Amino acid sequence: MWFSEAHAPGARLCVRVERQIYSAESRYQRIDIFQTPEFGRVLALDGRIMLTEKDAFIYHEMMTHPAFAVSPRIRDVLVVGGGDGGALGEILRYESVSRVDVAEIDDMVVHAARGYLPKLASSFDDKRARLFIQDGVAFVRRHQGEYDLIVVDSTGPEGPGEGLFTREFFGCCSRALREDGIVLIQLGGAFYEQSLSAVARAFSRAGKCFPVTRLYQAHVPTYPSGSWLFGFFSKGPDPIRDLKAKKWQALGIKTRYYNTALHRGAFALPTYIAQRLGAGEETGAAASEEGGAGDA
Amino acid sequence: MWFSEAHAPGARLCVRVERQIYSAESRYQRIDIFQTPEFGRVLALDGRIMLTEKDAFIYHEMMTHPAFAVSPRIRDVLVVGGGDGGALGEILRYESVSRVDVAEIDDMVVHAARGYLPKLASSFDDKRARLFIQDGVAFVRRHQGEYDLIVVDSTGPEGPGEGLFTREFFGCCSRALREDGIVLIQLGGAFYEQSLSAVARAFSRAGKCFPVTRLYQAHVPTYPSGSWLFGFFSKGPDPIRDLKAKKWQALGIKTRYYNTALHRGAFALPTYIAQRLGAGEETGAAASEEGGAGDA
Repeated sequence: MWFSEAHAPGARLCVRVERQIYSAESRYQRIDIFQTPEFGRVLALDGRIMLTEKDAFIYHEMMTHPAFAVSPRIRDVLVVGGGDGGALGEILRYESVSRVDVAEIDDMVVHAARGYLPKLASSFDDKRARLFIQDGVAFVRRHQGEYDLIVVDSTGPEGPGEGLFTREFFGCCSRALREDGIVLIQLGGAFYEQSLSAVARAFSRAGKCFPVTRLYQAHVPTYPSGSWLFGFFSKGPDPIRDLKAKKWQALGIKTRYYNTALHRGAFALPTYIAQRLGAGEETGAAASEEGGAGDA
Repeated sequence: MWFSEAHAPGARLCVRVERQIYSAESRYQRIDIFQTPEFGRVLALDGRIMLTEKDAFIYHEMMTHPAFAVSPRIRDVLVVGGGDGGALGEILRYESVSRVDVAEIDDMVVHAARGYLPKLASSFDDKRARLFIQDGVAFVRRHQGEYDLIVVDSTGPEGPGEGLFTREFFGCCSRALREDGIVLIQLGGAFYEQSLSAVARAFSRAGKCFPVTRLYQAHVPTYPSGSWLFGFFSKGPDPIRDLKAKKWQALGIKTRYYNTALHRGAFALPTYIAQRLGAGEETGAAASEEGGAGDA
């Protein structure tokens, strides 16, 4: 038996399935968990792979650590979405964190993760975590100057996550953050046109709400094309200029994908992406900065 | 009709095919060219996608420009494999280059590319290019101190490319290079275990033949897992320390993936890859170097 996901009209990823472990239709979406020989357990929402036990570490690490390496004193965190508990688990590894609110719209995602992805979802048992089964947009709107970091770990701009890529939501995030607050958000794939357009639109909207908006990338093998883009939006800190590599290393957080050299590298986008997203300036700046250091 | 390639025992990439354009069995391998709606024309050898018109630029740029940004006066180049002409085309964009020898074992690959991938294969018409239909290992063995750059653009370590991942071949490359010469070689996928093992073995062998051996990565969406590793081996130049970003930028070479900021970023490997390949030291060094610049 194979699970097959369309990554583009003419491209599919097919994953061999041993057995289906969980399947349900929630108010918002279809939720499936499969056992697979290649990727361990796989969580799919509306037929799209959200995570696999084998490569979820890449996504969850890149959704969290880049903020902590820039702002080592993050205390109050909000996760919007993230009902699997994976991003939450990475955040809770920091002793500086005293509270993480998780606003997940679909309690059945949390239920499924607790039942069948316990390594990820056990993070909800931490006393610092509070789960709110609520719409993320409405939740953020009710908070002001309260968070140091907001992680937006949602499905894409089609489906229940739609409202999380709007200018209104980004504006609410800005108000919900303390001074120097940071948003990390998964934006979408970097290769197929439909996805890149959606990323470009979201990135442009964010630019109207935050003084600092930067994009970074990671390879997530089970996501469409493998090439994935994230946003780093902030009210002040710059992800490169304000990177505190030694301080982060001194924390002794063991990671499998993220490191502070890769942090810098992740913000150096391929030319076609930078140009497509109007982020060419940043690439240019990074390149000329390098010129100074690297030139003979 | 779909073309389906196994990326791992339990994972396949499936590409919709409009029609098959070319199919032949050479002495060495099966050669297919398909017309696809998503990726344009696709060249497959023994059922594995070697390139597509849509994403080949990523691979060909990353197989060539990193050497020129480190050594801007490269004159004599050898391409081992590369019968499609794509890497050759990128190399010929440099005016400093006076000769490119291409040692391709399979003339039918060149024939197929000339017929059906003319944008790539037209590079063979350049007067500076010389095509040798020969085994790459035997070809390199007959040359000494003759090249500034060797690009090894082959199939993987299974099949006709097998000999290009051996210690003997790397030793011959070292002898065929001038002082300060560089080898760029595609090594394989970074995610699936079988491939990562093969990369680790090849990288370790190269370490016995070159004083400088570094790995770098790029996202090639149609390659297994999308996460691809390349080797930068040299008799002297270091890909980061000796990067001449401004000089390269001054050449005005327009690229779609490569830029000098990404160059640095590509050498910052994910932690799990660096550790797996014994390249942890390099990542550590890069990280601590950064610490100095980035710390508050």
